[in-house]
Amino acid sequence: MPVFTECSTSSRELRVLPSFAPPLPRLNPEFRDQEKYETVIVGAGPAGLMLELLLARYGLSDESLLCIDSKPGTLKSGQADGLQPRTLEVLKSLGLSDEILTEGCQMWEVAFWNPSKDIEKVIERTAIIPDVAVPARFPFEVTIHQGRIERILETDLLRYSKRGVLRNTKLLNVTIDEAGDANFPVMAEIETDGQQRTIRTKRLVGADGAHSVVRRSMGLRLDGESLDHIWGVVDLVVDTDFPDIRRRTAIHSPAGSVMIIPRERIATGDFLTRLYVQIPGDINRDDNQGMESPQQPNDARARRSKITLEDILKFATAAFEPYFIRPKINGAVDWWAAYQIGQRVSNDFTVKDSNGINRVFIVGDACHTHSPKAGQGMNVSMMDSYNLAWKLAYDVNGLTPASTNSDTVLDTYHVERHTIAQQLIDFDRAFSSMFSGKMGSTEKEVGDLTHDRFLEVFSTGNGFTSGCGIEYPDNIFVQKGFDEGVANPIEGTGFLSGILRPGRRLLNVKVRRHADGNRRDLQDDFTSTGRFRILCLTSDDLLEPAGTSAQTLDFIGISVIPRFPPSIIEQVVIHPKQPRFFEWNDIPSSVKQHSEMSFYDGYTLDDAYKVFGVDPARGALAVVRPDGYVGVIAALGNVSRIEKYLERCLRTV
Amino acid sequence: MPVFTECSTSSRELRVLPSFAPPLPRLNPEFRDQEKYETVIVGAGPAGLMLELLLARYGLSDESLLCIDSKPGTLKSGQADGLQPRTLEVLKSLGLSDEILTEGCQMWEVAFWNPSKDIEKVIERTAIIPDVAVPARFPFEVTIHQGRIERILETDLLRYSKRGVLRNTKLLNVTIDEAGDANFPVMAEIETDGQQRTIRTKRLVGADGAHSVVRRSMGLRLDGESLDHIWGVVDLVVDTDFPDIRRRTAIHSPAGSVMIIPRERIATGDFLTRLYVQIPGDINRDDNQGMESPQQPNDARARRSKITLEDILKFATAAFEPYFIRPKINGAVDWWAAYQIGQRVSNDFTVKDSNGINRVFIVGDACHTHSPKAGQGMNVSMMDSYNLAWKLAYDVNGLTPASTNSDTVLDTYHVERHTIAQQLIDFDRAFSSMFSGKMGSTEKEVGDLTHDRFLEVFSTGNGFTSGCGIEYPDNIFVQKGFDEGVANPIEGTGFLSGILRPGRRLLNVKVRRHADGNRRDLQDDFTSTGRFRILCLTSDDLLEPAGTSAQTLDFIGISVIPRFPPSIIEQVVIHPKQPRFFEWNDIPSSVKQHSEMSFYDGYTLDDAYKVFGVDPARGALAVVRPDGYVGVIAALGNVSRIEKYLERCLRTV
Repeated sequence: MPVFTECSTSSRELRVLPSFAPPLPRLNPEFRDQEKYETVIVGAGPAGLMLELLLARYGLSDESLLCIDSKPGTLKSGQADGLQPRTLEVLKSLGLSDEILTEGCQMWEVAFWNPSKDIEKVIERTAIIPDVAVPARFPFEVTIHQGRIERILETDLLRYSKRGVLRNTKLLNVTIDEAGDANFPVMAEIETDGQQRTIRTKRLVGADGAHSVVRRSMGLRLDGESLDHIWGVVDLVVDTDFPDIRRRTAIHSPAGSVMIIPRERIATGDFLTRLYVQIPGDINRDDNQGMESPQQPNDARARRSKITLEDILKFATAAFEPYFIRPKINGAVDWWAAYQIGQRVSNDFTVKDSNGINRVFIVGDACHTHSPKAGQGMNVSMMDSYNLAWKLAYDVNGLTPASTNSDTVLDTYHVERHTIAQQLIDFDRAFSSMFSGKMGSTEKEVGDLTHDRFLEVFSTGNGFTSGCGIEYPDNIFVQKGFDEGVANPIEGTGFLSGILRPGRRLLNVKVRRHADGNRRDLQDDFTSTGRFRILCLTSDDLLEPAGTSAQTLDFIGISVIPRFPPSIIEQVVIHPKQPRFFEWNDIPSSVKQHSEMSFYDGYTLDDAYKVFGVDPARGALAVVRPDGYVGVIAALGNVSRIEKYLERCLRTV
Repeated sequence: MPVFTECSTSSRELRVLPSFAPPLPRLNPEFRDQEKYETVIVGAGPAGLMLELLLARYGLSDESLLCIDSKPGTLKSGQADGLQPRTLEVLKSLGLSDEILTEGCQMWEVAFWNPSKDIEKVIERTAIIPDVAVPARFPFEVTIHQGRIERILETDLLRYSKRGVLRNTKLLNVTIDEAGDANFPVMAEIETDGQQRTIRTKRLVGADGAHSVVRRSMGLRLDGESLDHIWGVVDLVVDTDFPDIRRRTAIHSPAGSVMIIPRERIATGDFLTRLYVQIPGDINRDDNQGMESPQQPNDARARRSKITLEDILKFATAAFEPYFIRPKINGAVDWWAAYQIGQRVSNDFTVKDSNGINRVFIVGDACHTHSPKAGQGMNVSMMDSYNLAWKLAYDVNGLTPASTNSDTVLDTYHVERHTIAQQLIDFDRAFSSMFSGKMGSTEKEVGDLTHDRFLEVFSTGNGFTSGCGIEYPDNIFVQKGFDEGVANPIEGTGFLSGILRPGRRLLNVKVRRHADGNRRDLQDDFTSTGRFRILCLTSDDLLEPAGTSAQTLDFIGISVIPRFPPSIIEQVVIHPKQPRFFEWNDIPSSVKQHSEMSFYDGYTLDDAYKVFGVDPARGALAVVRPDGYVGVIAALGNVSRIEKYLERCLRTV
């Protein structure tokens, strides 16, 4: 276009920056102090990077926040590879899902192979079922190399933090020393390239894995035990005539068990496959301290360490018979390892000082270890950080209620995540031992594992393994109960299918925006920018100025949102079918003021009211936490219930 | 997972790099020469960056490829903002669409406001219709600031090129000097920070905009004329009670015309709006040289330059009445400009040397300028580069047929893109003058523009404005005709709805993958990695070993693909419903060998056969070019037709 007169406002250079929400408002003074930090993170695996990235996005500066890692860079091969539907939702809410969805391997289906009655066949396919059986925005799992997740997180981190991860830096020891400095009581000795120094911080988070130095320094223990089975795992490019090599497949052959995990395409153009291979024969039970004392070898370890790649491939070959399977070319094996199944969890996810302030936290493998086959590890670890990050940021920025002296906000980290870790351990124990068991070839065989029983555990576990069935227990951020005489406005109990429930994540629905007719995913208004959202599902009386819907919206817009720090509460409004066509001036002006671009009809696309269990004649209110989990539900009109909830969570202004 | 034995292959560090296809094979020797290049690009706007990014991805090194730009960085405000559905498909095929789709403003609907018979109302809404009326993977347009597109392209470029764009470097002059160096006949004088030097290159591409120095140096002219209308354009955050402010809206008010373009959310949390505002009164016609001679002011320019922001807002305010519209706060105006509508196109998009070799090319605004209101500029410009890039790379890498001495491959750039530019100019002339016309308040008014007529131009133009209706003319890469007695296997003529047609892009369909049950977008197998693809739609006889489908697949896999350079031809296979369930060993082994992960059923999700106009009883073959446009179609079984096409396009080995 041949422009001849042009004028621009120079102050608007932000236009071309990567998009991000403004950081959270900071009510506390800015922080800068030599060798002192407000938060230190130890370890930059998926859990540590997720935490640092979130805190940096929420506005913690490099002066306030330090993350160290002993490695020189991100992981190159092996380790975790599975992302659950819920984790994909979270990554989407961070704008980080595209490469993962496009380049990762989407697992839509699971195949089950079991002993065949036909002796020639040896094994046969019993069923192919969907991998994810619960509603989710992304109805599949994705497998992709852990190192790539780390690279994606770190690349994004560098938009917000100049320093990024301080690498080649290991933690030697951490102690709580209140006498030395009561405000910065956590003392960490660290070493960078041989240079030792001591730093102080208000809070320290151990994201340093199964052999966590933070956990050991704090005297926390992982309790639990190992089972008797050894497994091998190998990532390779295969040549095979097995028909389901590109599906997630559980093979229970008379010769042993194998789990196939299809993986992403690599730079050669080939597709990786991960195999979990059962190594026959029991071994002694391990002590319950996990792998953290390499100085104390024991018999089990000695025997396990004799397992070679050749052993793993030999047992795999046997379990696949009569099909052949082998590395496609020389060098097609990318990574392999052997491990013993074990489930352990720490009793305490935090350590408090003498005043009851949580000073040290552990996240990820540092607080729970388990078998890899359910594809949980990286997910639960990142979600630990996802749960902790906004609570830490609210505390650092002074956004929590002024009256809270007892650290109740950060207490909820242990309350919420220990519950989930214990469920993880319990599920994994059932799933793993079942998977290591022998499968009968008929359903009737007594004393043997049947396919139906296996399928049942697999399916009932889907709410957990998808990450979509997680439910946090009651605490200040999750209010489930109702006072006597106050009814829950939500109908139904199919929480896994989307019925609103405090403690569970808000399911995505497709909605149509009033302002522009845009079809949107509701979850795109609940991004991980650290904000609380009031979700108002109006009733069908929206167009009546004196109706409950209009009065509720006016009250929220005029009397509730302005009571809290600016930008910290957003509002999303959905309406059911109304008796007539309407424009902006037919509804309360506060809707346009607070929700011009987050005001939807909830019936043209998905039936949001049905999904959420809300009667269009009555409507409902909910508060959704910064992490996308419902905090409280109230009847439309009962604004004081959500106002009281918010007062418990947030400082007023 | 507590691993105790672990081993990885160190050579596989590629695993954590951003994913990319390997570069194209290079059959010519590697290039490195002081101050000489194989390709030089002038200008790093959307067209230049798109070209440099594609060439870098295809494997041109920093020694071979140089891109210069006179600006110090990407654009900060104003200019283009619209992306068509077809451009979104292309960006998706490059893995660059996520931020644009998520952060840009999706325009799903267009509203039309016209004079009302009710004098109180002044104007009223006549219709709301979908913005995109043709099938497309993304059925909407996206508006987002041009500078952000540039930033996205440049960030990605730096994955592949260390130098990136050589900035602060302007082109002074370019000549073709065969006597001095016949192999590098293009001589460019450039100046970086005041330092002048002369470089030589085999080919040079002018992506240097409407005032192109390349075009002027080469003596090429933009032919065409300006119309009599002046328009103002302003980007701002508005405060208004106009109901359709977030829809693309054409207002024909008695007081003048306005086009509303809703824009993306900016860092303040506000949403931008772009207004195109008609400035009443005619002006003198401009000379036909466009804006390239600022030394020759004329009357028209003098009068136009008096237009101020206040004028534009004043006329906008009048056209919106009785609704109010104003900048939301002081400083809410981000950018504004005034322009005169004009349509001009160059007769030649390339300049040849004495041997008929295309040495200098122009792309984007350098070869066509027009009004901005149809949202075409940035799209057509980037698509010029998208068309040119793979042809240049094939030439540089020696992948074109050895017998081709006459530059027939690069001749197709002008043939294909000039056709489109001429269509663009013609459409824009009709659309713009219609938009600047006065609208009658009844459909019957004689001599006046009617709403119905306007709607008709808008709708018939949709194939063009969406980018999805583009059809390239016959040339060596587009073979439309059939020999006598050979029937076209394609049924139907609804090319805009997906019926296969040489010269048109392959429409996306949803397909289900055989190997893993994965639901995929077919276009995800036609990414912009520079490869040709054979698309085989088998018939329903796939399971008969002696059937046409099996024999065709065998022949392609064994006798066709291996004749061409490795990795340069990929194969995608779709099958209709078969009479029985089948496994890999029921079909030709070449399917698994060449298409294990690109073999689909074409009926569980979309009905691919119906969309493409293929009879499942007969099947069909097509070759799709590296840019996603169909090159040739053949009956299933007529492999020699596609083989001959490929021989014309590609060197054999």
